[in-house]
Amino acid sequence: MKRNYKFIISYDGTRFYGWEKQPGKEMTIQGKLETVLSKMTNAPADSPVSVIGAGRTDAGVHARATVANAILDTDMTEEEIQVYMNTYLPEDISVNEVRICSDRFHARYNALGKTYRYTVWYGISKPVFDRKYVTVLNQKPDVSKMRAAAQYLIGTHDYKSFCGNKKMKKSTVRCVDTINIEESGNYIRIYFHGNGFLQNMVRILTGTLLEVGYGNIPVDSVKEILEACDRQKAGPTAPPQGLCMMKVDY
Amino acid sequence: MKRNYKFIISYDGTRFYGWEKQPGKEMTIQGKLETVLSKMTNAPADSPVSVIGAGRTDAGVHARATVANAILDTDMTEEEIQVYMNTYLPEDISVNEVRICSDRFHARYNALGKTYRYTVWYGISKPVFDRKYVTVLNQKPDVSKMRAAAQYLIGTHDYKSFCGNKKMKKSTVRCVDTINIEESGNYIRIYFHGNGFLQNMVRILTGTLLEVGYGNIPVDSVKEILEACDRQKAGPTAPPQGLCMMKVDY
Repeated sequence: MKRNYKFIISYDGTRFYGWEKQPGKEMTIQGKLETVLSKMTNAPADSPVSVIGAGRTDAGVHARATVANAILDTDMTEEEIQVYMNTYLPEDISVNEVRICSDRFHARYNALGKTYRYTVWYGISKPVFDRKYVTVLNQKPDVSKMRAAAQYLIGTHDYKSFCGNKKMKKSTVRCVDTINIEESGNYIRIYFHGNGFLQNMVRILTGTLLEVGYGNIPVDSVKEILEACDRQKAGPTAPPQGLCMMKVDY
Repeated sequence: MKRNYKFIISYDGTRFYGWEKQPGKEMTIQGKLETVLSKMTNAPADSPVSVIGAGRTDAGVHARATVANAILDTDMTEEEIQVYMNTYLPEDISVNEVRICSDRFHARYNALGKTYRYTVWYGISKPVFDRKYVTVLNQKPDVSKMRAAAQYLIGTHDYKSFCGNKKMKKSTVRCVDTINIEESGNYIRIYFHGNGFLQNMVRILTGTLLEVGYGNIPVDSVKEILEACDRQKAGPTAPPQGLCMMKVDY
């Protein structure tokens, strides 16, 4: 029987070319999920299972709890589906929940908000056990400056200066309601919550905040950077491994 | 000037053949440390730096804070040594502290106690982000049985039944004063503290406790297993990746 299923998924993005399936690239999260679900349901080769994800993370970016959905023709229970998927998916993708959902549920269109976390680490030792999940800094940035700059970056704005896609034709207006910066030991974790994020946006926001923290961009310049609607004015795109999609709201 | 230095070191043991250097095996922790320190001090080829470790972990076993010492002939400061080592050691070995210590300090002979932690995980999802640092179980063991069995395993005993080295000629008597089993979410962490541990001892103790937790070994049999002084009576050697050396007391 054909029903719509909702999945909550974690993945270590290190080995993947990102969420979205791409011709010739075997290692994508969406591709792995579609292959396993098509096999599980014996889907005909000309109509494989299509998986819709809440967000398309870049190569190397992780997810603790992203959401996806797919129409599946199966009599298996939700738990049987979860066990099957976790058995056949690689060790760096985990399905944490499988639920039958409304036929109208769409993981991307229905997403109301998303939480991302960017983690950096500084120090003269090394973060051996989570080295694939943090970005190592050469020095400690000034977190109070970063917090002050973050205040300019929240609200409803045109985030064109923070969009990695130069050819973006759709609206670049988004609402980022929270940027929280937490310090713990040698870690600095930046939590972003908003109604949606442009391509590379969290990484460019992070790269800009770090430049402020290093004193290379004055706090008040961040307002001008935002208003310029010019990618050239913002800081660099922070590396992917520090970024993790934490939660999707519906 | 020649002085004795004490190091506190973390490593992810996944890629290594264990602590101890071995002919023909490039990937050992001791080997990597000796190579970097010999290069740092321009040690002559016929008298390279020798590094003494608190304990010789098996292939695949990790350490959060093991201790080592070495006599170095250098004018570098402790911090300069640490920065040099962290620059030239691979990303899965970190030097967290370097201190000049008494000439008589010996990381192995002077160790009074050690804390090891063994981490297991169970569930129908997967521990994506720490999959290299836990052992995944197919089912949840009965932790209350494991705790009861652990009571037989503490104290001063001949631990020959839990020694992986069949040809061990020295004493197999050790004092294990604590075995604490903590549950947190889908994780079970077993902390062992004692004055010393035989080869594979923590892994065999863990393998035996897990068999008790699964109901394959009755709780009271553990007393007989200990008294038998026979490796064949104990449970299997638990896999290396769940084990981590946490602390060394001096």
